[in-house]
Amino acid sequence: MQGLHTYALMGEAIGAAVLGASGFTGGELVRLLHGHPGLELRFLGGAGSVGQTLDEAQPHLGALDVGAMPIQAMEPAIVATAADLVFSALPSGSSAGLLPAIVEAGSRAIDLAGDFRLPAEDYPPWYGFDHPAPSWLDRALYGLPELFAKRIADAALVANPGCYATAMVLGCAPILEAGLAEPGPIRVDGKTGLSGSGRGAMEATSFASTEDAIRPYRFPGHQHTPEMERGLALATGLDVSVLFVPHLIPAVRGVVTTCYLPAAPGVTTELLTSCLAGAYELRPFVRVLPPGAMVDAKRTRGSNVVELQAVADPRTGTVVVIGALDNLVKGAAGQAIQNANLMLGLPESVGLPTAGVWP
Amino acid sequence: MQGLHTYALMGEAIGAAVLGASGFTGGELVRLLHGHPGLELRFLGGAGSVGQTLDEAQPHLGALDVGAMPIQAMEPAIVATAADLVFSALPSGSSAGLLPAIVEAGSRAIDLAGDFRLPAEDYPPWYGFDHPAPSWLDRALYGLPELFAKRIADAALVANPGCYATAMVLGCAPILEAGLAEPGPIRVDGKTGLSGSGRGAMEATSFASTEDAIRPYRFPGHQHTPEMERGLALATGLDVSVLFVPHLIPAVRGVVTTCYLPAAPGVTTELLTSCLAGAYELRPFVRVLPPGAMVDAKRTRGSNVVELQAVADPRTGTVVVIGALDNLVKGAAGQAIQNANLMLGLPESVGLPTAGVWP
Amino acid sequence: MQGLHTYALMGEAIGAAVLGASGFTGGELVRLLHGHPGLELRFLGGAGSVGQTLDEAQPHLGALDVGAMPIQAMEPAIVATAADLVFSALPSGSSAGLLPAIVEAGSRAIDLAGDFRLPAEDYPPWYGFDHPAPSWLDRALYGLPELFAKRIADAALVANPGCYATAMVLGCAPILEAGLAEPGPIRVDGKTGLSGSGRGAMEATSFASTEDAIRPYRFPGHQHTPEMERGLALATGLDVSVLFVPHLIPAVRGVVTTCYLPAAPGVTTELLTSCLAGAYELRPFVRVLPPGAMVDAKRTRGSNVVELQAVADPRTGTVVVIGALDNLVKGAAGQAIQNANLMLGLPESVGLPTAGVWP
Amino acid sequence: MQGLHTYALMGEAIGAAVLGASGFTGGELVRLLHGHPGLELRFLGGAGSVGQTLDEAQPHLGALDVGAMPIQAMEPAIVATAADLVFSALPSGSSAGLLPAIVEAGSRAIDLAGDFRLPAEDYPPWYGFDHPAPSWLDRALYGLPELFAKRIADAALVANPGCYATAMVLGCAPILEAGLAEPGPIRVDGKTGLSGSGRGAMEATSFASTEDAIRPYRFPGHQHTPEMERGLALATGLDVSVLFVPHLIPAVRGVVTTCYLPAAPGVTTELLTSCLAGAYELRPFVRVLPPGAMVDAKRTRGSNVVELQAVADPRTGTVVVIGALDNLVKGAAGQAIQNANLMLGLPESVGLPTAGVWP
Repeated sequence: MQGLHTYALMGEAIGAAVLGASGFTGGELVRLLHGHPGLELRFLGGAGSVGQTLDEAQPHLGALDVGAMPIQAMEPAIVATAADLVFSALPSGSSAGLLPAIVEAGSRAIDLAGDFRLPAEDYPPWYGFDHPAPSWLDRALYGLPELFAKRIADAALVANPGCYATAMVLGCAPILEAGLAEPGPIRVDGKTGLSGSGRGAMEATSFASTEDAIRPYRFPGHQHTPEMERGLALATGLDVSVLFVPHLIPAVRGVVTTCYLPAAPGVTTELLTSCLAGAYELRPFVRVLPPGAMVDAKRTRGSNVVELQAVADPRTGTVVVIGALDNLVKGAAGQAIQNANLMLGLPESVGLPTAGVWP
Repeated sequence: MQGLHTYALMGEAIGAAVLGASGFTGGELVRLLHGHPGLELRFLGGAGSVGQTLDEAQPHLGALDVGAMPIQAMEPAIVATAADLVFSALPSGSSAGLLPAIVEAGSRAIDLAGDFRLPAEDYPPWYGFDHPAPSWLDRALYGLPELFAKRIADAALVANPGCYATAMVLGCAPILEAGLAEPGPIRVDGKTGLSGSGRGAMEATSFASTEDAIRPYRFPGHQHTPEMERGLALATGLDVSVLFVPHLIPAVRGVVTTCYLPAAPGVTTELLTSCLAGAYELRPFVRVLPPGAMVDAKRTRGSNVVELQAVADPRTGTVVVIGALDNLVKGAAGQAIQNANLMLGLPESVGLPTAGVWP
Repeated sequence: MQGLHTYALMGEAIGAAVLGASGFTGGELVRLLHGHPGLELRFLGGAGSVGQTLDEAQPHLGALDVGAMPIQAMEPAIVATAADLVFSALPSGSSAGLLPAIVEAGSRAIDLAGDFRLPAEDYPPWYGFDHPAPSWLDRALYGLPELFAKRIADAALVANPGCYATAMVLGCAPILEAGLAEPGPIRVDGKTGLSGSGRGAMEATSFASTEDAIRPYRFPGHQHTPEMERGLALATGLDVSVLFVPHLIPAVRGVVTTCYLPAAPGVTTELLTSCLAGAYELRPFVRVLPPGAMVDAKRTRGSNVVELQAVADPRTGTVVVIGALDNLVKGAAGQAIQNANLMLGLPESVGLPTAGVWP
Repeated sequence: MQGLHTYALMGEAIGAAVLGASGFTGGELVRLLHGHPGLELRFLGGAGSVGQTLDEAQPHLGALDVGAMPIQAMEPAIVATAADLVFSALPSGSSAGLLPAIVEAGSRAIDLAGDFRLPAEDYPPWYGFDHPAPSWLDRALYGLPELFAKRIADAALVANPGCYATAMVLGCAPILEAGLAEPGPIRVDGKTGLSGSGRGAMEATSFASTEDAIRPYRFPGHQHTPEMERGLALATGLDVSVLFVPHLIPAVRGVVTTCYLPAAPGVTTELLTSCLAGAYELRPFVRVLPPGAMVDAKRTRGSNVVELQAVADPRTGTVVVIGALDNLVKGAAGQAIQNANLMLGLPESVGLPTAGVWP
């Protein structure tokens, strides 16, 4: 029995829209919204999938009562009329032009891509395009609920953080803020399952090509690099420098970020653990592991939980901070709903699973 | 937003116990009970894990508020005092002696092992032991909710069906009853992921030994063979004969039963599909696929859904009936809660997911 | 140390060509030819990959001395000049027009697709095209080395059997011939890993879509159905009827065929096992398992071995015959080289692995 | 056709023994020895598996002609009489006492465990035991063939390097020697499949527990840490300091080491690549990837190849060196045979695969 029924849902449910309904993240948004007591799915938007029903685009959702809902073209006025809150799971580059119009038409919006996470000058080098609506970049709030909850409550447009950046920033921010490690250079070694590559067909992500594959990719130019630097700067006020080397591994869900920071003098594993435990004591989705325990992405599968651990290595003057989460939940759809809860004045955990589907 | 809030939960929540709390099925029971609005977990029982907390035995459940609950020895009187409804996920052979005492002490119970599914004479040849409480075998009800809902409502002791038998009996029962196929010999080719083998360490189920493994096991003597025969006999009144050949395949969850039945004359795929669709029209967890569509165990992962399809092959006089489900949910913990809902007078779908965690 | 060096390789090595060099089977052909003492790779052919080197098309072969060999267009005269023996791993439908011209230009050829396995009238219903060179269908020999070795020795054009058909026909032929089972209806339940779907990008075969997937596909119309019927007819002279239901499972390599045959009276598992053991006593690649042992596709991975077992179930009057092999080796490239050895008068096992890469 | 037949094998084959024949590495040794033209398997030793035949202990090797060879107790005199060259795949701690006696009895030996890789004082802190034969530690040669080929030729006892250390040392040694990076602190992020955990049954390595798992383990105290430091010191003469954080990922074979080194001023990716390419120009098993290409452990599966790449990141002053290999071949059995070839005066690549089994 859920212990969460302490809030009262007043009046009508809030109408929600999911744009990009045919992708992996769109599917997770629909699944989680379906179990949410305060949000009601009223609009599905897409591009190539317009004309399909949800059931056709996402057969695993076919037993839901919303299975027959059609995927529609994304006219801003129509979307805004249908939904007070708009979740965009469109690919990076697609929401930058669309969401401002939807917000101007009266909805609040959460972008799950990278289109509102960085300053304008970072888009050409890291994303490869000029941002079409740079004035909105200041208005968008970087939505890491554990660090910026108060500001999120009032935001009209929230930039939902990337999966890697969520794990990395949550782990490193309190340690940097406490002065237990230096702000750079931080080397971040990432590992991710295949769902992070999206649903499209590629030879490189076929089962035959990836069973037993372990391979780095897109480094040192991965676009989460400046997001990590900016996220930590927002949280700590420090000037942070990051190298990020992501690796693809044969799993479906799961992200692990192993971060190597220069240690401050005298730092111990116990100090690091206390620092993290103190920072997240009251947050329902952050589990700080005791010294000796090891994070595991598998334990977070299907849940909104992030696991953190930190270890000092005096031999090499290193602080190791490791985070693990489900990239489609805490790294995408679940965190977006956590942001939505804050925007609606609900407890942040409403409708979100704290127990993974294991094994 | 869940459309299910049409029922009213009167008064207090019902207390529930989970025996065998450290296994895979025990973990799923706790996960599902946690989200259930009418049942409250009040007791965890075990054997080798007594003394551990839930968090220690099931680290993926550690973020739940019940994480610190201890696993206790299973004194019938104590269990019955703590819980009105007892779920036993103990291994086969362990609940046969225990559950009668618990029911006599005043609780109602659901056995997720095979200890109450068969007549007494079937235990020595198929399970390898003499049943210690044969008089209870008549009192236990075979709990396949889609076929025996009315009788389950009043049962004190429910035998929760096996994963393979659930998929096979749900698929074949309506077709046999309608006379679209002969009751035997039915050849059932089963495929299962590794979680069906339980949580214990075995070389044969290590990752290194099973990646890319495809292997039959324990046939023709698998203990679900007589369960399939009896389940179909209970549902149709026919004398059914079954050969069951299960195969282990490299997945964690998922069961598929591909059943080959002698066809009645003139049977078509359309007739078979209509028969199944009609039988399960109002059941929330049974999806009958249209001709041409194919079941997939992956779509059911984490949900209580079973997918069914049926195809006629006039060339060889065969009816092929295929069922797919998540062995730990519809094949175990989810179906047990579905039975509990019926025993408590609740709608059968309360607290149970109809959308899988995909991909 | 290999015990096989009993043959003498006289004079020059034989020149070989691989058409379809950029696919999975083409890659396996190159890998196996590289270790073959009597064949030398002299030509690589392709369609979309023309202009690439082997290293570019198959990076895992880049450390071989043939890594820089170019993939060329497939002019019959040029191919025949370059190579005495031509292996075609082109997709079904592509070799039917090409190989006759190559054979007429003077080479001998082995087709690893389905273009020469069936009578002309079977192509429209099972393959969906009219055969462009029907007169060649009688001249092509069905190349199952364990059953037709003598005739293969003289063939100019060999139709290399399909992976499923190889496992099924090798298992069932001796049993049918000995009268231990009826020739139909035989229900064949197939399981295969993903490499059988080829190297092309498809959403349905991505890692994210197939981890934990278990799903039937393309039945009852799979094109190996008539091949199984014909293969058994060629081997036994009997009129055989087959239903074939293949399933996709999350492995890369590996095929298992579980065949359900009507038993002859009095048949036992011991009789079946003796029959198979006797039939393949001297064949280096067929392992007949003793009663109680179970085949496993994983054990055959990377080798040219096929494992067979047979079990009688008197309760249902069924004979169960199960075969397991690596679909890219014994089910494709390895068997092709086994055929080539026979065509060249070499021992059939030359250059072929009898031990799999395990685990 | 193999291009390697340039050597002449004079006279008799050399007799070989494999100790620890029932484990994963023991199985790989037997598989590779079987195809080796200059070594003949004459003795199999074990502990718990004594009394079994090879076929019983390693069913996937049952089709080999050595399948019936018994696994025997390991009396030093008997082993040395049977075999000139002894491969020990016993677990760490077991060969330290045994191999000196075998070498004194007249054989040469290669230890695939960690018992002869470190100075005596490193065993208590990193391996947890006092070394029983410390005087042999100076006599054992660290057998990394690409770096120490000349000295290996004369060695009586070779310490075969660990899988992680092989990838890491081969990648970093030339770069440190050329002064393109500082010798510390080097942070090494390791990823490995499950076969590195050995064949024994553990709950933590079951398929159900590890599908989709990504988890660090045993750091900062992993015993390959001092081996990396010592290996680099032997190769470069520098005083090196290493932090090693290994991660378990859901693959069977495959090791990737991602090494973060402080960059020397002005270093570029091109300089790093040239340095590695020059160092390994003539070595058959080292593939240095061009700038922009990414290593993949999958491509090395079943082969003795190691893939290397190096990238400079001037933003953070980091050199990233990544190595990938098959932990059971180049990381164990294959490298042991490469060492054996050098000890016997054969070309180092004799009998070793340069093409992986892909996909």
